[in-house]
Amino acid sequence: MSTPSLLILPGDGIGPEVMAEVIRIIDWYGDKRGLKFDVTTDLVGGAAYDKHGMPLADETMAKAQAVDAVLLGAVGGPKYDVLDFSVKPERGLLRLRKEMDLFANLRPAQCFDALADFSSLKKDVVAGLDIMIVRELTSGVYFGEPRGIFTEGNERVGINTQRYTESEIRRVAIAAFELAMKRNKKLTSMEKANVMESGILWRDVVNEVAADYPEVEVQHMYADNGAMQLVRAPKQFDVIVTDNLFGDILSDCAAMLTGSLGMLPSASLGAPMENGRPKAMYEPVHGSAPDIAGQGKANPIACILSFAMALRYSFDEGEEATRLEKAIEKVLSDGVRTGDLLGEEGVTPVSTSGMGDAILAAL
Amino acid sequence: MSTPSLLILPGDGIGPEVMAEVIRIIDWYGDKRGLKFDVTTDLVGGAAYDKHGMPLADETMAKAQAVDAVLLGAVGGPKYDVLDFSVKPERGLLRLRKEMDLFANLRPAQCFDALADFSSLKKDVVAGLDIMIVRELTSGVYFGEPRGIFTEGNERVGINTQRYTESEIRRVAIAAFELAMKRNKKLTSMEKANVMESGILWRDVVNEVAADYPEVEVQHMYADNGAMQLVRAPKQFDVIVTDNLFGDILSDCAAMLTGSLGMLPSASLGAPMENGRPKAMYEPVHGSAPDIAGQGKANPIACILSFAMALRYSFDEGEEATRLEKAIEKVLSDGVRTGDLLGEEGVTPVSTSGMGDAILAAL
Ligand SMILES: CC(C)[C@H](C(=O)O)[C@@H](O)C(=O)O
Ligand SMILES: CC(C)[C@H](C(=O)O)[C@@H](O)C(=O)O
Repeated sequence: MSTPSLLILPGDGIGPEVMAEVIRIIDWYGDKRGLKFDVTTDLVGGAAYDKHGMPLADETMAKAQAVDAVLLGAVGGPKYDVLDFSVKPERGLLRLRKEMDLFANLRPAQCFDALADFSSLKKDVVAGLDIMIVRELTSGVYFGEPRGIFTEGNERVGINTQRYTESEIRRVAIAAFELAMKRNKKLTSMEKANVMESGILWRDVVNEVAADYPEVEVQHMYADNGAMQLVRAPKQFDVIVTDNLFGDILSDCAAMLTGSLGMLPSASLGAPMENGRPKAMYEPVHGSAPDIAGQGKANPIACILSFAMALRYSFDEGEEATRLEKAIEKVLSDGVRTGDLLGEEGVTPVSTSGMGDAILAAL
Repeated sequence: MSTPSLLILPGDGIGPEVMAEVIRIIDWYGDKRGLKFDVTTDLVGGAAYDKHGMPLADETMAKAQAVDAVLLGAVGGPKYDVLDFSVKPERGLLRLRKEMDLFANLRPAQCFDALADFSSLKKDVVAGLDIMIVRELTSGVYFGEPRGIFTEGNERVGINTQRYTESEIRRVAIAAFELAMKRNKKLTSMEKANVMESGILWRDVVNEVAADYPEVEVQHMYADNGAMQLVRAPKQFDVIVTDNLFGDILSDCAAMLTGSLGMLPSASLGAPMENGRPKAMYEPVHGSAPDIAGQGKANPIACILSFAMALRYSFDEGEEATRLEKAIEKVLSDGVRTGDLLGEEGVTPVSTSGMGDAILAAL
């Protein structure tokens, strides 16, 4: 196979800072492990708007379609709040997801032992937590038509459409069952089938797919109860599969349970390309954190762990991914901490690049 | 004014048990405080389906429209899971909300001092928590058309429509601002304006209404961030206003933060009737809990506090409502507990009716 290609889109706010540390890690893999990547860098979000007047240039979109994997930092910032909906930084991200058809968004919510105290939840409720949320990412109310603000009589009406086809549900359900087979064979599907017909279809299709995975224990839960159960006793879950909008809210809720948002990566996967690799984009769960941008305070671990996910899911380098994850665990148990994780005694505060140094040293 | 009228709909599961204790409280108010109510009882949910083949008979609907306030227990149970969508127990509840036009659902999430240990969150994160969530209850994706499961090409498609008119948003925003004025003058509105046009309209209209309440500090937050912030630091909020679906999930999340779901009431309010009282229904936030139904284990406090909300919001008896709330606080600080709240040392376990006895004694 030719050298695998990566498109790096640092984006806005702390995106460029955390991505700089990822690039150092990528270089290390090239130098020390013979894992070379062909890396291109480009703009997304507000940074792209500033240059092109749109949050993702067509040329960048074309590059994203051509590479083996995209690594994205974060998009958005107060400066862009006044922009029209159609050119807001988020639209760049949504365009990438939609046009690359990245239907399965994998969001692990993992509580790192060394950091369990940072959770707002009691330690015994979250210690050892390890959930994988699979969120549908290319359909539902995010993309359904009709949508917009219309005038009816003498008032405005805001309309969005939740729309799911059987095949859209099936492919993300299959992705979730496959993950469940590799983990604890336990899958919870969340919707509002008691209120929404799209939820009834969702439940039906999940049950159909379940027939092909007799070993997986399947449970259906209403999304409101799901939110409650995540807060009450999150360790009851292993893999959760849900739609785009519920997934947005529930995965953020689950992420916050761990108390360390700066630690959580994500992978967005599509169908296999000709070379067998899935279309893929990797990004941290955290946002662009404009309040601390440019100060060397940001935690680069979520973004580095997103690259570890790329090693695992795009490049079949599970062992190298584990090596990187282990290095990060070691650094944390040595007490090295960026500003978001201070507060305990006896820890060593470091900057963004200081954290990069420590991880490289541990590698 | 003539004797105020109440329609009591105990419903399914633990509904009848907890409502029995409310009826004893209502009787006490008639005997001891000269507050007489004209009480009628009827069926809703599975209980109504068993008798009428539908989860709310037209006759019951007519009664609900005629009374000053409805008190509802809970609906649903595994026995009814196989029923068609259109006759499921929930449809009875949704019909009441829609036909009575109960657009403002008030869901307090309050953490009772005596019970802060029951939360899965750290005590300092939730002790003293007192949030009021105002959820829009008669529109949005719960009722929007088109909806259903259709066939397109050779596959099924599930469709629901999120639809909000300006006036629907305005009236619930006004209700929320009015509450904010009576509380801490701080209001957070939650939507996904970065993804949904209906959220943009929501934000616009909330801002328009805000102009009439210059004293209220208004904040807009994306609903996913809202879920995170509720878990991270819930005491940053006072009044939250949000749509039907986000409100369903976020209010359940907030309720679970308190750790004592068996304690939380709700009020659903509509426009003023001819006598000046708002159309109103009161119900506990908890469900029908079929697993413990009929065993005298259920906690009747959420349902009793719902009656306290009725005293306050329907009958302008704020002082009597406070009397009832104080009696409940006293009983809790005396260590009287139903089965859902055991675990501490030195408490007195009681049955559902034992809790009713204790509250009556404290009154
Ligand atoms: C930035 C925003 C459009 C996005 C979403 O709503 O999907 C974000 O919240 C996420 O979860 O990745
Ligand atoms: C029972 C169900 C239809 C209902 C809802 O979704 O509104 C419930 O979850 C609630 O929040 O009152």
